Amino acid sequence: MSDSRKLSVNELAELVHGNLKGDGALTIARIANLDQAGENEIAYVDNEKFFDAARDSKASCLIVPTGAIDRFNAAAVIEVANPKLAFAIISSSLHPAKQRQPGIHASATVAETADIALTAYVGPGVSIGEHSSIHSSTRIESGVVIGDNVLIGSDCVLHPNVVLYDGVTIGNNVILHAGVCIGADGFGYVRGNMGYHKFPQIGTVVIEDDVEIGPHTCIDRAALGRTRIGRGTKLDNMVHVGHNCDIGERVVIAAQTGISGSVVIEDDAVIGGQVGFGDHTRVQKGAIIGSKAGILPGKIVRPGVWWGIPVQPLDEYKRMNAHLGRLPQMRDDIKELKRQLAELQKQLPKT
Amino acid sequence: MSDSRKLSVNELAELVHGNLKGDGALTIARIANLDQAGENEIAYVDNEKFFDAARDSKASCLIVPTGAIDRFNAAAVIEVANPKLAFAIISSSLHPAKQRQPGIHASATVAETADIALTAYVGPGVSIGEHSSIHSSTRIESGVVIGDNVLIGSDCVLHPNVVLYDGVTIGNNVILHAGVCIGADGFGYVRGNMGYHKFPQIGTVVIEDDVEIGPHTCIDRAALGRTRIGRGTKLDNMVHVGHNCDIGERVVIAAQTGISGSVVIEDDAVIGGQVGFGDHTRVQKGAIIGSKAGILPGKIVRPGVWWGIPVQPLDEYKRMNAHLGRLPQMRDDIKELKRQLAELQKQLPKT
Amino acid sequence: MSDSRKLSVNELAELVHGNLKGDGALTIARIANLDQAGENEIAYVDNEKFFDAARDSKASCLIVPTGAIDRFNAAAVIEVANPKLAFAIISSSLHPAKQRQPGIHASATVAETADIALTAYVGPGVSIGEHSSIHSSTRIESGVVIGDNVLIGSDCVLHPNVVLYDGVTIGNNVILHAGVCIGADGFGYVRGNMGYHKFPQIGTVVIEDDVEIGPHTCIDRAALGRTRIGRGTKLDNMVHVGHNCDIGERVVIAAQTGISGSVVIEDDAVIGGQVGFGDHTRVQKGAIIGSKAGILPGKIVRPGVWWGIPVQPLDEYKRMNAHLGRLPQMRDDIKELKRQLAELQKQLPKT
Repeated sequence: MSDSRKLSVNELAELVHGNLKGDGALTIARIANLDQAGENEIAYVDNEKFFDAARDSKASCLIVPTGAIDRFNAAAVIEVANPKLAFAIISSSLHPAKQRQPGIHASATVAETADIALTAYVGPGVSIGEHSSIHSSTRIESGVVIGDNVLIGSDCVLHPNVVLYDGVTIGNNVILHAGVCIGADGFGYVRGNMGYHKFPQIGTVVIEDDVEIGPHTCIDRAALGRTRIGRGTKLDNMVHVGHNCDIGERVVIAAQTGISGSVVIEDDAVIGGQVGFGDHTRVQKGAIIGSKAGILPGKIVRPGVWWGIPVQPLDEYKRMNAHLGRLPQMRDDIKELKRQLAELQKQLPKT
Repeated sequence: MSDSRKLSVNELAELVHGNLKGDGALTIARIANLDQAGENEIAYVDNEKFFDAARDSKASCLIVPTGAIDRFNAAAVIEVANPKLAFAIISSSLHPAKQRQPGIHASATVAETADIALTAYVGPGVSIGEHSSIHSSTRIESGVVIGDNVLIGSDCVLHPNVVLYDGVTIGNNVILHAGVCIGADGFGYVRGNMGYHKFPQIGTVVIEDDVEIGPHTCIDRAALGRTRIGRGTKLDNMVHVGHNCDIGERVVIAAQTGISGSVVIEDDAVIGGQVGFGDHTRVQKGAIIGSKAGILPGKIVRPGVWWGIPVQPLDEYKRMNAHLGRLPQMRDDIKELKRQLAELQKQLPKT
Repeated sequence: MSDSRKLSVNELAELVHGNLKGDGALTIARIANLDQAGENEIAYVDNEKFFDAARDSKASCLIVPTGAIDRFNAAAVIEVANPKLAFAIISSSLHPAKQRQPGIHASATVAETADIALTAYVGPGVSIGEHSSIHSSTRIESGVVIGDNVLIGSDCVLHPNVVLYDGVTIGNNVILHAGVCIGADGFGYVRGNMGYHKFPQIGTVVIEDDVEIGPHTCIDRAALGRTRIGRGTKLDNMVHVGHNCDIGERVVIAAQTGISGSVVIEDDAVIGGQVGFGDHTRVQKGAIIGSKAGILPGKIVRPGVWWGIPVQPLDEYKRMNAHLGRLPQMRDDIKELKRQLAELQKQLPKT
């Protein structure tokens, strides 16, 4: 949550390159839902289904899809190709991310060899290790722990109690929510006579630009080499990413999904919640995997929509489910066939 | 865990409005299991199956169900309608929650505009933001981070390293276990040409009175409006509650369950562990959902017991499983039908 | 991650009791993969499939399986029975765990009655409660919170923001990764007229020697008695262990598995990720349970490989899946039987 600032409809229309109808001088202070919006608030509609609701809305300004501007009579109407996207962009302007006064809080513990940009904020109780560097305008909130040799880019936000182990690299404009843990040892052991020995986990983790990671998500360091989260990828809460995974760009992964070691997820994949990946699976560009799916080790998931445990194309899954639904009928059919056959057998002369 | 204090059997019987037989002056110091209880300990039995074990118990005092008081000869016996409940209430008296001396630890960082009750405890390394207030007798343990404009009621316990984002509201008598994260941004993005833009997440979270939340559970703030956890609801460990969910009163949700955005769970629902809810589902009052169930987006779960992926009434699930169990038999039947039919065909005169 | 130190091939061969061929005086600084290894690096091969890759490797030293030493011409070759294990052991020597100067950081809050070994390290912002003790050479990293009456053995590492509730016991040589939470109240309530009352959770947790626990894993205290994690057991990230569980020795449990209350897992079991255990289940020694399996309450899982929801022997699961795969064929067979039967009926003289 954040404070809001006020902008005119003219400014907002310009911001999203939209056509404007109505009073461009109106002041907008907040975004809102169609049904709850009121004075000085802006709402959006992108689906004809909700046009009536939009017309009933008390919003001072509506964002509507191309071609629909004349169907609305709000005090101000902005017409754009993608109203939801325009709404998101306008929201970022009206409700900018929290600002902090640059500086290092007196209660933070920062190694002498660490390099903190003058425009960065380091909050209470933060701990930063040797040779780590924090670039410009990055915010490190209370209780964050950053190990040695960590590199964090510009304009990042690390929410409270994030932990970055030694040697991790974070790009620019990255948001890590509370409790995110990056760089813990991967889960690898060798069985000896007496029990398990730790297999070396001396690689690292690289988080590229524009990534956002939900609270308590854990991304393990590589055994050797690196675990990677590609540019623009978004991970939800409590996702597990094992050692040596390579997650591409603009991938979306919903909450509580677990990804075993050495999994590759190519660009633009969309993964539901509570999905489980066996190790060494590969998800190809453009694949969409439904929630709670399970992917066997080594599997290649091709483009398309996938579902179930183990995962299969959604069409096949539906076909199989239809077959299952017919089981009672099949059973009745078999009974009836038996009955008729017995009847026939009785009618036949004995040979 | 907590220290124990001693009470007489008379005091305990009065506390739970029970009938007393035996020595009311006996001192009780601790609760215990039937089989491990000894002197100065109290145990309970509520099931006839365990009456023999209860008679063998060395507990100084037994709590027994109505009508059974004469069947036990412990030094003291307390008879109540609900022995397990009485045991729980007595336990709270014998083993009261940990007490802290009120005050703010010198290492805590508390904003000048924050308002901390004189009877509240604020532990080492705690950080409390602007305009937040903590009401009477609330305990904030080490490493907790509380944002700006947070309101916390009376008699709460925030265990170590809890994180409350800006603007969150917590009622009275709420227990948040270690690492609970409330108010992180919901998982919402709009796809543009270049990748994903953050959809506004500027709502809040309200936790009502008497809620208990297990370690590392994450409850995201609403996009707009609020995410709500109703009075008396209990969440286990590592539960995920997405933005704009409305969880009712006295709901119980077991560990690792994931709830997508805008889900409504009505009062008194009981949800197992590792359940997954698609967005915009509604669970009606009195529904019981078994562990590992999966609920498709938009589904309405009516009262009754539900099971499976996707979720279905337990009876139907069992019926379907019975059908599956008969598949080998069905296959054999079909083989046999084919054989008999071929036989018949051979017997018939050629047409 | 950690710094590396240099050792000679002679020293490494001796360390793993291996046969040596080639230049024992060579210096080795780092472990590496076969394909990325170079000068001063050591790699291993344990599978004939990769012998060609190993011969192509630029590693200064190769670890190879017994009997294969003459098939390699690296500058140095070490022959052992278990090359992967030797590699792990050598890695521990080349890349020793991070060392800290003993001492208590000025920003830590340590109770006067706590007992901290002189060789222990207590980092920034750590909080340690009354009557707790930390034994020799244990490292407590930043932001860790340790309650009262906690006992931690020697040579442990507690990574940042670990939380140990009151009364918990940790053995020797235990590694707890960031955010691990041990000893929170188990999830137990009694329903009364007005809602749920907390069932007493006044037991404890015991973690034995040589255990490693992944980030954000939560292990709840027992209601009465103790929850136990046996010697040499390894838990991955975000595992949930409910109250009163008894996990044996050398058990391996992958990420996001959830274990309800009072579950017993015997020694040497191997459990996949995202598995769910109903309460009071028992997993016998030597059982292997596949990822995403679901075990119904009270179930006994015998030795062997198990799979599915609900869990069944892998063989049965495969058989059932084969049956399911034949459903379309079965349906066609039934149709054809009906057709043939109708044909026959037409041919028969009317009776």
